[in-house]
Amino acid sequence: MKLYDGGRAPNPRRVRIFFAEKGIDLPELVPIDITAKEHKSEAFTRLNPAQRLPVLVLDDGTALAETMAICRYLESLHPQPALFGQDAKAQALIEMWNRRVELGLFAAVAAIFRHGHPSMAELEDQVPEWAQANRDSLDDHLWLLELQLASNPFLCGETFSVADITAAIAIDFMKPARVQLPEDFVHIRRWHGEIAARPSWTA
Amino acid sequence: MKLYDGGRAPNPRRVRIFFAEKGIDLPELVPIDITAKEHKSEAFTRLNPAQRLPVLVLDDGTALAETMAICRYLESLHPQPALFGQDAKAQALIEMWNRRVELGLFAAVAAIFRHGHPSMAELEDQVPEWAQANRDSLDDHLWLLELQLASNPFLCGETFSVADITAAIAIDFMKPARVQLPEDFVHIRRWHGEIAARPSWTA
Repeated sequence: MKLYDGGRAPNPRRVRIFFAEKGIDLPELVPIDITAKEHKSEAFTRLNPAQRLPVLVLDDGTALAETMAICRYLESLHPQPALFGQDAKAQALIEMWNRRVELGLFAAVAAIFRHGHPSMAELEDQVPEWAQANRDSLDDHLWLLELQLASNPFLCGETFSVADITAAIAIDFMKPARVQLPEDFVHIRRWHGEIAARPSWTA
Repeated sequence: MKLYDGGRAPNPRRVRIFFAEKGIDLPELVPIDITAKEHKSEAFTRLNPAQRLPVLVLDDGTALAETMAICRYLESLHPQPALFGQDAKAQALIEMWNRRVELGLFAAVAAIFRHGHPSMAELEDQVPEWAQANRDSLDDHLWLLELQLASNPFLCGETFSVADITAAIAIDFMKPARVQLPEDFVHIRRWHGEIAARPSWTA
């Protein structure tokens, strides 16, 4: 296998952290320089017509894109520790929280970064009004997380899951997006500190 | 089980179609009137703090939200026909295409509808610039689908999957969003005609 990697960008990090949490060695990495628009090159577009990172190329040549598709594939090959849940109900609740965060907080922070950060003007047709709308709604997404973490050590209860990776990466992503986590989100702060202290987090 | 349902809205439809494709009877339906903002009521917010439809309430009282979490749970209970794929690689490719469509075409059409349709002004803090940006990029998402369907009967090859439901619902959603599918997307037209003729499509 080969992993086409995008360095510090949030989705490549999610996949490398997933490998680390599984205790699997990373495959050969092929670095793709997003700031140099290498992900929009003809060669990379043939690999992933959606022009997004990361991409895992399997030994038979299949190019597997989309962070969660790659993580699910790794879970199939290496079921333990189960990061997508052990039984049908746990799996469903982890999928629910992972999607709530991806389509909520993660998408909002990404919109603020892509449509609001000066360095992204080269890569995106920026809509500053969309960045602002997401800044305005960010607290709603954070409250959803805060309430859940008030009564759960991890996002889906007693066990670390892929939903914690997604959510904690979204919090990390607030720094380049230049938005602060307000002091009063004490449960998010407690949980994020614990996640960021895991050995996987430097992957 | 009980299914909190939202009528003609795209996500409730995806779940009802999924039930029909599995050959499972729908559970008791609880209709929630989105235009009357019932999904923002205190009672519904207790069930799903993200205030989105549909929600499947399990017999033990667990409220399962998020369309794909509900569909995956049904797949666990009723594995055949496998709409998420039979083996690890097929499952990964279906997940890849389902997400490409959800985060691409489906999200774009939803943005055009939510931020551009006069009837949504009551329900959303509309950002008309965001609706327009998504109108401008819609063809890019459609081309990704068109190229894949040029050489595949279904989105992920020879077999109907949950990715076809997501993508064909996104095409259906173009009508209320008031955007046309251009005539030259002939493969999308062929495939959408076949999907819309399936008995499940009236669910």
